[in-house]
Amino acid sequence: MIDLAGIVPPVATPFTADGDVDTASLERLCAFLLDAGVDGLFAGGSTGEIALLTDGQRDTVVRTVVGTAAGQVPVLVGAVDTGTRRVIDHARRAETLGADAVVVTAPFYVGVHPDEVTAHYRLVHDSIGVPVVAYDIPSAVHTGLPASSLAELAQSRHIAAVKDSSGDLSAFRRVLRLTEGTGLRVLTGSELLCDLALGLGAHGAVPGLGNVDPDGYVRLAAAAFTGDAETATAEQERLVELFDITSVADRSRVGPSAVALGAFKTALYLRGVIDHPAAAAPLRPLDEAETDRIRDLLTRAGLGVVR
Amino acid sequence: MIDLAGIVPPVATPFTADGDVDTASLERLCAFLLDAGVDGLFAGGSTGEIALLTDGQRDTVVRTVVGTAAGQVPVLVGAVDTGTRRVIDHARRAETLGADAVVVTAPFYVGVHPDEVTAHYRLVHDSIGVPVVAYDIPSAVHTGLPASSLAELAQSRHIAAVKDSSGDLSAFRRVLRLTEGTGLRVLTGSELLCDLALGLGAHGAVPGLGNVDPDGYVRLAAAAFTGDAETATAEQERLVELFDITSVADRSRVGPSAVALGAFKTALYLRGVIDHPAAAAPLRPLDEAETDRIRDLLTRAGLGVVR
Amino acid sequence: MIDLAGIVPPVATPFTADGDVDTASLERLCAFLLDAGVDGLFAGGSTGEIALLTDGQRDTVVRTVVGTAAGQVPVLVGAVDTGTRRVIDHARRAETLGADAVVVTAPFYVGVHPDEVTAHYRLVHDSIGVPVVAYDIPSAVHTGLPASSLAELAQSRHIAAVKDSSGDLSAFRRVLRLTEGTGLRVLTGSELLCDLALGLGAHGAVPGLGNVDPDGYVRLAAAAFTGDAETATAEQERLVELFDITSVADRSRVGPSAVALGAFKTALYLRGVIDHPAAAAPLRPLDEAETDRIRDLLTRAGLGVVR
Amino acid sequence: MIDLAGIVPPVATPFTADGDVDTASLERLCAFLLDAGVDGLFAGGSTGEIALLTDGQRDTVVRTVVGTAAGQVPVLVGAVDTGTRRVIDHARRAETLGADAVVVTAPFYVGVHPDEVTAHYRLVHDSIGVPVVAYDIPSAVHTGLPASSLAELAQSRHIAAVKDSSGDLSAFRRVLRLTEGTGLRVLTGSELLCDLALGLGAHGAVPGLGNVDPDGYVRLAAAAFTGDAETATAEQERLVELFDITSVADRSRVGPSAVALGAFKTALYLRGVIDHPAAAAPLRPLDEAETDRIRDLLTRAGLGVVR
Repeated sequence: MIDLAGIVPPVATPFTADGDVDTASLERLCAFLLDAGVDGLFAGGSTGEIALLTDGQRDTVVRTVVGTAAGQVPVLVGAVDTGTRRVIDHARRAETLGADAVVVTAPFYVGVHPDEVTAHYRLVHDSIGVPVVAYDIPSAVHTGLPASSLAELAQSRHIAAVKDSSGDLSAFRRVLRLTEGTGLRVLTGSELLCDLALGLGAHGAVPGLGNVDPDGYVRLAAAAFTGDAETATAEQERLVELFDITSVADRSRVGPSAVALGAFKTALYLRGVIDHPAAAAPLRPLDEAETDRIRDLLTRAGLGVVR
Repeated sequence: MIDLAGIVPPVATPFTADGDVDTASLERLCAFLLDAGVDGLFAGGSTGEIALLTDGQRDTVVRTVVGTAAGQVPVLVGAVDTGTRRVIDHARRAETLGADAVVVTAPFYVGVHPDEVTAHYRLVHDSIGVPVVAYDIPSAVHTGLPASSLAELAQSRHIAAVKDSSGDLSAFRRVLRLTEGTGLRVLTGSELLCDLALGLGAHGAVPGLGNVDPDGYVRLAAAAFTGDAETATAEQERLVELFDITSVADRSRVGPSAVALGAFKTALYLRGVIDHPAAAAPLRPLDEAETDRIRDLLTRAGLGVVR
Repeated sequence: MIDLAGIVPPVATPFTADGDVDTASLERLCAFLLDAGVDGLFAGGSTGEIALLTDGQRDTVVRTVVGTAAGQVPVLVGAVDTGTRRVIDHARRAETLGADAVVVTAPFYVGVHPDEVTAHYRLVHDSIGVPVVAYDIPSAVHTGLPASSLAELAQSRHIAAVKDSSGDLSAFRRVLRLTEGTGLRVLTGSELLCDLALGLGAHGAVPGLGNVDPDGYVRLAAAAFTGDAETATAEQERLVELFDITSVADRSRVGPSAVALGAFKTALYLRGVIDHPAAAAPLRPLDEAETDRIRDLLTRAGLGVVR
Repeated sequence: MIDLAGIVPPVATPFTADGDVDTASLERLCAFLLDAGVDGLFAGGSTGEIALLTDGQRDTVVRTVVGTAAGQVPVLVGAVDTGTRRVIDHARRAETLGADAVVVTAPFYVGVHPDEVTAHYRLVHDSIGVPVVAYDIPSAVHTGLPASSLAELAQSRHIAAVKDSSGDLSAFRRVLRLTEGTGLRVLTGSELLCDLALGLGAHGAVPGLGNVDPDGYVRLAAAAFTGDAETATAEQERLVELFDITSVADRSRVGPSAVALGAFKTALYLRGVIDHPAAAAPLRPLDEAETDRIRDLLTRAGLGVVR
């Protein structure tokens, strides 16, 4: 049984100038993350632009990440789609391609009752052979996963872990409390509260910014897990400042997803890890002034840039 | 060139007890709608549970509806998905299967800027050979299509029609005003304001309740298009009361989608049009008491029931 | 017993350069509205910046409007505040100053249950001697008044009228249906759907834009009430275009309230009705370019300007 | 100059059976809090039902709290109202009655731009002689106070402190970072993340649950301020469980405000501190079963009950 814990970056998906998956850049990114000592790779999360990838592109991403990971660390794969049967199709495909676990949100587009959401997770669990990670991301799916639902699903072993991207640390604390003793792995999706979440007993983190500075998050987690809160906090404070790259883009010109994803990919491009900074259509790229500002923030955070 | 106008019901998707698409019931439903004199069929809308159908099920639905329509009326097909490339894949598939137009929402799951939304529509338009209908459904995708964006896309001929499910008749009126002279077909998705929308100059309607009482909407439109506002309103008032079937289900037990979809399908089941009332997993079915209440409302609206 | 029907503009509150209530301008505005033939005056609505007026300023406004109306038409007064007892204090004061009815929203700031909202209306009704008008304005108070609650309060005679500023014409239609026969006066707060609302059977309208062009709304209502839908619609279409004055201000610089209120007051200033266009602090005034644009729109709508 | 730091409970407002302020109970509550060693008292916060109190009741509350505090600790007073001039009237009145600082939210009911919000705070500051505490409570006023606005107001000394009830610890951390060196006192309004907020450098906390268990919060803060994170966390965990009293009431019967306020007041009633548990109209009281459940939770948390 795999262990879902530690730093598991949601791997960005690099594209070529034509908008195809740039597998060479993706392999380089995975290697960059593995070299930093991450504990897992999450392919096809929100940061991986899962919602903008075709099924074919999703397969390419999973194959590439699984291939590069080569069993060194577990690979989680997002089975993100609107309805249960669609999710099951993606999950089975991911399992076939070598995923060690699948990451599943609540249904979206449709409006669902909390009991329909738990039924959704049970149906997905019963249809596949790898563990299910519940993905709580109300900003994207407009439905939250209440702590009580997670506790119920953890108790009945329908989910093996949760990735909490709710931004609500009170609720996160409640999840930790209500799932104690169930074996559920509780992972935070927050870039900014990692030190606190790990200090509270979280088993790991899935930070989008971990693409840009995996070493920082690995050091943060190592400190947190050995009880060195001071070092963890100092590292976190540096990463909080680095996260300012996601406030650089002009929101009167680009949407919220492009603002954040564009910043991560521009940073990876400047650091020489990937070849093109663009996000998938229809998201707009950052402009030159915004790119310059990100270069400055990377340098200030002590990260090397090559462009 | 097809004409997108008149009453175009968003066809419900009947399932067998096993959750497969019940093609016999679907054919019966299409025939029921065509017999009533509808002007088009919209397969794979929100009412058709598009978000809950696998790709295979979507194909089955499109094939069945296209086959049953047999060229008598245009068939619109929902190409509903989160991102541009995914939508293009669905749209091409629908075109191949015989769709006369594809219906496309704004991107969702991701957060987008209005200019990214218009780029999305232009990219979809440029990738297929059939007209694009913009689907404004903020309750599902959490992004609205501003009148100014629709006017821009109509002017440049990237969209041929809009289906407005915003519920905001002021905005609808503004769309009509700003797109006058562009040839854009403006369709309302409202069940309850059809008479008023058509009176304002809308070219048609796409009412979910039209599955249950297509004759009513056909009569309503006929009256509205010939300037007989009184008859249109009387018909509308009757349909408003019939729409109470969507308030029957207990919201402490089933989610908002199941409440409405369950009502339409239960009504079709009671009327003898389809064989099973259930919506797709994970949506919950209505219970017996709720079914009884729907039977009463059908009878009160003068609609025959066989169960 | 007064009759709450017809065109009842929510009177704007003009200020001097020092931010005091400009009673001379306010008298001129009331006279301007009365000359146009309005059927009532609503002092202290959202358009009257009730939320920004001190208690002393509220009294001045009520005294001035009541004095200028001089019994020619009923004067409605907003008793807008967060909680029941606060509302009762305002309502009693308004009654003492000569209000013919008080206009009351759901509680806000606090989060309330629908049954707590109906209790609120019953308590206010039982504490005063003039009729209560329910004010449904979810954009301001973030709680709607469901049709069922309004029907219950109409049946028990705790409210005499409702002003619907929800923007949801389906819900409005439902209110009309559920309160039929109760004697409840149903007024729309929409500037843009007045013709349709009156056509559906609404008893009147409370349009903010009625400050700027009361003659237009009076003509619209006269046509609607005599069944001349064509004239009503033509008048409405002209007013819809005039309403574009509320889209002029730059939302990256001023807030939503200042955008709309600033437009109305700037228009009244340009028309020579009031002496200063400013809204109350902290709302920002429109700038010169925005003022020029409003002047153009007034002229295009056939309204005279003197500045 | 007073120091706004440490544990500052937002004092609940007890009522008599008739709905008047129960000054004897309020004095007892203040004494109970002071005995526990709190560092300040906040009269007229959301927990104090400020939105439901008449101006006369607000005065009674302030007089009673100021009188009982008798200079032992600073008294903060909420000047909560919709608009700037209304807030200034309340703030001046509070100053006259002996408030050491006034607590001010963003404007509400109206829709405002961030720059209009900062103008609001500057105008309030310039009108009174006591410090202004910014109250960030988007759940009540539907407008947040961005970290950048708070930093600007702290830099220019228009605000002396902020009470953060946003529930967003990432944003809180950003406020701490951006206001470092300005002297701004940063207080958390969270009951559940007090240990973490103080650990991050917050200067104090304003927990509603502090009414019920002031000793717990005082111990928590003492531990946090002396760097004993373990004790602080243990105390917090106990308080998190106690906070379950706010999940007891049935939300199908009472609104969100009554659920929380009713729980605090019922607990104070059971503990013998106040004579009646009811909140102000129109909020509904908890029922007997809910009261029993709160009694259990108090006992489990080690708190004595007398009823």
